[in-house]
Amino acid sequence: MIEVVMLLQSCYLFKGLSEQQLRCTSEISKEMQIKKGQWLFHEGKPADQIFCLKQGAVELITEIDDGFELPIKILRSKGSCFGIASLVAPYLYSLSARCAEDGSVLAIKQADLERLISQDHEMGCILMSNMSRDLLERLKEARQELKIHFKTLFKFART
Amino acid sequence: MIEVVMLLQSCYLFKGLSEQQLRCTSEISKEMQIKKGQWLFHEGKPADQIFCLKQGAVELITEIDDGFELPIKILRSKGSCFGIASLVAPYLYSLSARCAEDGSVLAIKQADLERLISQDHEMGCILMSNMSRDLLERLKEARQELKIHFKTLFKFART
Repeated sequence: MIEVVMLLQSCYLFKGLSEQQLRCTSEISKEMQIKKGQWLFHEGKPADQIFCLKQGAVELITEIDDGFELPIKILRSKGSCFGIASLVAPYLYSLSARCAEDGSVLAIKQADLERLISQDHEMGCILMSNMSRDLLERLKEARQELKIHFKTLFKFART
Repeated sequence: MIEVVMLLQSCYLFKGLSEQQLRCTSEISKEMQIKKGQWLFHEGKPADQIFCLKQGAVELITEIDDGFELPIKILRSKGSCFGIASLVAPYLYSLSARCAEDGSVLAIKQADLERLISQDHEMGCILMSNMSRDLLERLKEARQELKIHFKTLFKFART
């Protein structure tokens, strides 16, 4: 239990929660072994669980129409969190997640976390605020990449 | 006052707030006239206000290194909200906003809204949750654009 609380504490999503709030979250967390090549979820499918990496590595991927995969990120750090689309309407995963190295994750059911949030609005406010921060950061990264692509296109167009 | 409440109600950020919560928000909102060409804020600068469009049009822009502007969005709908980076650490605007047509906006100081949120965690939870939904949507749009650019690059590379 203490180990789970410490793992949750190292995850950006749960930063700022009290010990009591972390304990409640640990009670709804379930450890799961993952195997290399195993899909944890698929883009566009109903998002009903959020994950926190304990060991191993997980790739986040989006698919380009013709079946070509565009890698978005590879998570290796303990406490990395993924599947947060399960906390945001319309509750559909926005990326696919595949295990890149054997390991383990904590899985938290969206319904269980929503129940905690509805009972403790302060906790909800902290989680949602942490999530907004992360999403804004990722949006800035995506825009930065877009800028690089624009520049590359200009170069191609000029030559 | 009722007019301001109705305008706030039409903004995605304030969706789901109670009448009382909307009234409190209207009390910290200030109407401001805007003139075509006027900058409301600049990318990378401290974000201390959030805006809600009442009339006119506002462009959201990012700058590519060499001074070339990349337009991100043009807001024309009453109730469109912008400057939400003022509610997310590190509190720096992630885009620039320039008035594209004369009109008016509601301006809400970040410090005033933060005070309301700290007194009413339920309200905070609703605002942050609405913001996360919007940010995730925008992130998906940015990724979609990235996919299109990748495809264009492939085409260039093949020819």
